[in-house]
Amino acid sequence: MTLRWIIACLAATLLAPTAPAARADEGMWTFQSFPAALVEQRYGVRITPTWLDRVRLATVRLSDCTASFVSPKGLVLTNQHCAEDCLAEHSSPSRDLVEEGYLAGEGSRELRCAGQVADILVGMQDVTAKVLAATRGLGDRAANDARRRTLSQLEQACERASRGPSSGEPLRCESVDLYDGGRYFLYEYRHYDDVRLVFAPERDVAEFGGDPDNFEFPRWCLDMSLLRVYERGRPAHTPHYLKIDFAGPRAGEPVFVSGNPGGTERMLTLAQLLTQRDVELLPYVVRLAELRGRYIQLGLQSAADRRLLEEPLSLLENDLKESREELHALLDDAQLARKRAEEAELEKRVVADPQLARATGDPWAQIAQAERVARDIALPYTFIEEGAGFDSRLFRYARTLVRAAAARAEPSASRPRAYTDAALPALERQLTADVPVHPELERITLSLGLARMRDRLGPDDPLVRRVLGKDSPEELAARLVAKSRLADPAVRKTLWEGGETAVAASSDPMIELARLVDPEARALRRRYRDEVQAPVRAALQRIARARLAVLGTSVYPDADFTLRLSFGAVRGWSERGRQVEPFTHLARMFERATGSEPFRVPPSWLAARSRLDLATPFDFCTDNDIVGGNSGSPVIDAHGDIVGLIFDGNIESIAGTYWFDETNNRAVALDSTIILEALRKVYHAQALLAELGAPAG
Amino acid sequence: MTLRWIIACLAATLLAPTAPAARADEGMWTFQSFPAALVEQRYGVRITPTWLDRVRLATVRLSDCTASFVSPKGLVLTNQHCAEDCLAEHSSPSRDLVEEGYLAGEGSRELRCAGQVADILVGMQDVTAKVLAATRGLGDRAANDARRRTLSQLEQACERASRGPSSGEPLRCESVDLYDGGRYFLYEYRHYDDVRLVFAPERDVAEFGGDPDNFEFPRWCLDMSLLRVYERGRPAHTPHYLKIDFAGPRAGEPVFVSGNPGGTERMLTLAQLLTQRDVELLPYVVRLAELRGRYIQLGLQSAADRRLLEEPLSLLENDLKESREELHALLDDAQLARKRAEEAELEKRVVADPQLARATGDPWAQIAQAERVARDIALPYTFIEEGAGFDSRLFRYARTLVRAAAARAEPSASRPRAYTDAALPALERQLTADVPVHPELERITLSLGLARMRDRLGPDDPLVRRVLGKDSPEELAARLVAKSRLADPAVRKTLWEGGETAVAASSDPMIELARLVDPEARALRRRYRDEVQAPVRAALQRIARARLAVLGTSVYPDADFTLRLSFGAVRGWSERGRQVEPFTHLARMFERATGSEPFRVPPSWLAARSRLDLATPFDFCTDNDIVGGNSGSPVIDAHGDIVGLIFDGNIESIAGTYWFDETNNRAVALDSTIILEALRKVYHAQALLAELGAPAG
Repeated sequence: MTLRWIIACLAATLLAPTAPAARADEGMWTFQSFPAALVEQRYGVRITPTWLDRVRLATVRLSDCTASFVSPKGLVLTNQHCAEDCLAEHSSPSRDLVEEGYLAGEGSRELRCAGQVADILVGMQDVTAKVLAATRGLGDRAANDARRRTLSQLEQACERASRGPSSGEPLRCESVDLYDGGRYFLYEYRHYDDVRLVFAPERDVAEFGGDPDNFEFPRWCLDMSLLRVYERGRPAHTPHYLKIDFAGPRAGEPVFVSGNPGGTERMLTLAQLLTQRDVELLPYVVRLAELRGRYIQLGLQSAADRRLLEEPLSLLENDLKESREELHALLDDAQLARKRAEEAELEKRVVADPQLARATGDPWAQIAQAERVARDIALPYTFIEEGAGFDSRLFRYARTLVRAAAARAEPSASRPRAYTDAALPALERQLTADVPVHPELERITLSLGLARMRDRLGPDDPLVRRVLGKDSPEELAARLVAKSRLADPAVRKTLWEGGETAVAASSDPMIELARLVDPEARALRRRYRDEVQAPVRAALQRIARARLAVLGTSVYPDADFTLRLSFGAVRGWSERGRQVEPFTHLARMFERATGSEPFRVPPSWLAARSRLDLATPFDFCTDNDIVGGNSGSPVIDAHGDIVGLIFDGNIESIAGTYWFDETNNRAVALDSTIILEALRKVYHAQALLAELGAPAG
Repeated sequence: MTLRWIIACLAATLLAPTAPAARADEGMWTFQSFPAALVEQRYGVRITPTWLDRVRLATVRLSDCTASFVSPKGLVLTNQHCAEDCLAEHSSPSRDLVEEGYLAGEGSRELRCAGQVADILVGMQDVTAKVLAATRGLGDRAANDARRRTLSQLEQACERASRGPSSGEPLRCESVDLYDGGRYFLYEYRHYDDVRLVFAPERDVAEFGGDPDNFEFPRWCLDMSLLRVYERGRPAHTPHYLKIDFAGPRAGEPVFVSGNPGGTERMLTLAQLLTQRDVELLPYVVRLAELRGRYIQLGLQSAADRRLLEEPLSLLENDLKESREELHALLDDAQLARKRAEEAELEKRVVADPQLARATGDPWAQIAQAERVARDIALPYTFIEEGAGFDSRLFRYARTLVRAAAARAEPSASRPRAYTDAALPALERQLTADVPVHPELERITLSLGLARMRDRLGPDDPLVRRVLGKDSPEELAARLVAKSRLADPAVRKTLWEGGETAVAASSDPMIELARLVDPEARALRRRYRDEVQAPVRAALQRIARARLAVLGTSVYPDADFTLRLSFGAVRGWSERGRQVEPFTHLARMFERATGSEPFRVPPSWLAARSRLDLATPFDFCTDNDIVGGNSGSPVIDAHGDIVGLIFDGNIESIAGTYWFDETNNRAVALDSTIILEALRKVYHAQALLAELGAPAG
């Protein structure tokens, strides 16, 4: 008896990352499979279906962030960095809203954010049985086609149904593939496409600490903004909203994060993780580091160059830090050994069950074989097909024009997914949008790509020779950027409309380059699709089904930017013997200010300093399991009130892409207390405070 | 019987990297333990003691390369890149000898290379017994002291003896620690300190292909130079020289490489390799990549900046490629697993022998513990003590001044090795040498170091705060570089001579910074020395002795820039299914020329093209086991004649730092045939050809 129990425990430990009971606050749970019993057992908090519905209907998916309704008049709370594009869009040479921040006057002057959308998940249907019925007995390829067709039909039927005479607004229906094909759902969204900017603080306080503090804690960032969702030109009616509790959370308090984590890779096999580490992350980090050096050096030339670089450099630095830490995670021998043991344990359980063994086969070996191919073609695939060798906006325009023209000559159904009739309008908008192209940056990224492609594929590689001819990478990049006319949206529009004939006849040097490279790039893509992606997809699906057969939905699916809920508590951690406290306070921001970027406090805060309560909690951390895409997620207490606003994770949370380590993985949030202090004493936003139901100041 | 044989074989395979019989052409063998029987069995070539003596006495150790005597009048053959400093030294703004090359007229105008030396290994004495006798029964620390004292006394006695009345030139005697303390030798060198430049080709042909081709094969580099050793102002008399066979080698021919491989890490334990990979190589590669980006971008500003960067950039790129490939090697799961199995096998053998087990203990566990400390302190150690945070020539001057002043206040015997009375003259020469300091480069490296130190240690680290104060890294770097006067050698000399008082009184901001950082840096160094280096050294020595006890000297010691001989054959390899031929030919160099750096053929070769035999073999590769330090090594055939000149390894050879993989590790050499063709038809070096005994043209 005792022995049996020990064995069961061992197995649970080995299968830990997917077995919540052993892993505490891990998991980005779907609302339909939230482990309420576990939460009650752990925190004594009862999460009811009503609580879940209310939070779900108040959670908003923006185009690449999360937000939540905080008033019945469409007001949503999210991060400043989720509104940064909107601020930039409304800036002019004389008024930089990113730098200065923005506060709309009473109801008027709320600035529409082009391209921003808001989606509310109003329904979920499990359609697994329908998909399985449609694919039963078919081979890998045919099953794949049948699955896509079925999901497409289900989506259309769902949207038609929502347009029925008795319905309100039509819904958006999207199929969702959970557990690598283990479960299929139709998610129904209420969709808004008019989102406006209400308030954002100055960048210097929203992003205080800049790149050095990014992914770190302790932290002092007022990374918040308020947007408003409009409907037919008026603020939307949003009865499902969350109240902000301006008292903030307490240390140890159980909290919940609702939102759209963008992506995790926790179901990958060890072979996939090692490929990702060796042939994707490591070379990528090295390339980014070199590009960072070039950007920084260029920025020293003039104030104009520096301004030009601000956004690309900050995106690059975020990406670099994240990729570097992912790489670091995949060098963690103990975690890799755990992963290896988990695979072995699941395989053992599969083998022990003859029926499951027959249905599962040996997907791990199939993936290992595919990964060998991936490693073999990694260099040309990265440089030629993924475009690392031609890193330039102009080249990407050219390639899109060349590929779209070729695709459009085919019937929609046989085109790649990116070029179907359904996808074309968005693609055309993107292609012809009036986005500035900076020749200096184009030359840097393109010459760097060409040079490193020559290094890694070798100067004698046939494609490298055809591309470079007698040019050096710098010469070729300079000539292409100087001579191509694709920076002009009108030129791109003409080529788009002219289709295959116009593209074939074009003597634009960037189009010529894209035409030159395309046959080899497409051959690589085909090989990658057929010998890596297809077998890996099929194998992962068999692993996922085996795992569901063994563990049921006590496991959560990988994140995919659909709605999830995580639970946890406000909690610091211990780092090299030092305890990191879970809260920071306002006083320390002023102490850390140097006057130089990125440690500059904006004038509004310096002016308000004497009025401010310097003991106000500022940011805090929790052990909720989140990743990118959760930006702007509300931190919700047991009552369903907002006590904080997620804007980051600590550096250890980056390993969360691959696994969750409760000992040190922390989410980083803004305390609701500082929101009140800032809106009241720094920004004097009385109307907003009233709308938020804030206590009188 | 059969089973026993299989088991023995398995063990040999597991212990493969140190068991030559199983590993074919592996090994950088000492001349005293060269495996002649193995070579005879493998290649049918008898290497006699006479052959070995002749080759040893004709092999020259330069200050950081290898060379060989090729005439009785002191003429030595080495690489152009080993003479590059000498070429630069004799260049002027109007005449760049690196670019233009150099050919001394008949005997006169041979240019003395400052600091270049030539050492010939004329004797080797095994002193292991003496060292063991002196250290028997002592504890780790006392044994360490006794060992150092004994070796020092042996060196002095050896030098005194060579100065006896009946002797010729006095010898230099150096103790050599082979097998991590498993064997001790005294090596006796005939030393020359007057080495002059006779011939070097233009850089464009010596380094054709530049960084893209570096560590690659196929290859087309005439990376050769000729120097001459002088004695009392006249060419030295060198009866032990090697004849050049200008017919070059044949494919498959057995060849030998004599020289001074600089360093390998093949005896490290797995725990050490993983630390090296994760906390040394990876961050180093990322830092170098960023610096490369900054250099390249700076180089685009002006032709002057580009010239200024030529040397630092090319050194950086070489270093980056090497470090990147070492990192790559340490991600090789199969090799790491082999290493793990080897350790387990040796440990098993040790445990099976009670006496050996007692003497050995568990050094692997001891190292693993030390490596945990190394990982824990890696960030501050790298940035603060190793100086990655203060990467600047001026700071290094300042730190040397601060540390030397403090050390000189102590008696010589209790100073760190770098500051003993014996070391001071060289240190002073280095410190006060008139080397240009470029403010632009100083600002780049220093601001980069400061910025990354702030990122990695965090803006709230106490030392980071003390160093930066309210400055940004760029501001601090700019101010320090502008205000420090240490660029002036006279200022450094005054501070050196003024000693502790002068250094303590100095208000030079770089000296102030060095003083500020030093206490923490020294504390880190102490911790590293006591908790990492000391236990690791003791443990490695116990492993080395265990290995010698099990395998004897059928193993070779790690490389350490002392004389070694490797054997192998002219042999290509197979790369992703493609066969790489072992020879290149002259014609292809012209085909690959683009006219732009680094694929530019110099005018002399373009002018000679019609006279040249384009079918001449140019470079070739062999499977000899070499590493850096072997640059300039002769490739010798079975008769003892030179058929080639080592100048590089292929990209796979970089993993040779950690292990030798005969399937793809290749040495890259210049063919003697192209030497003749070039000297005769391009450079018209008739006198040299006559001295080399070349056939009449």
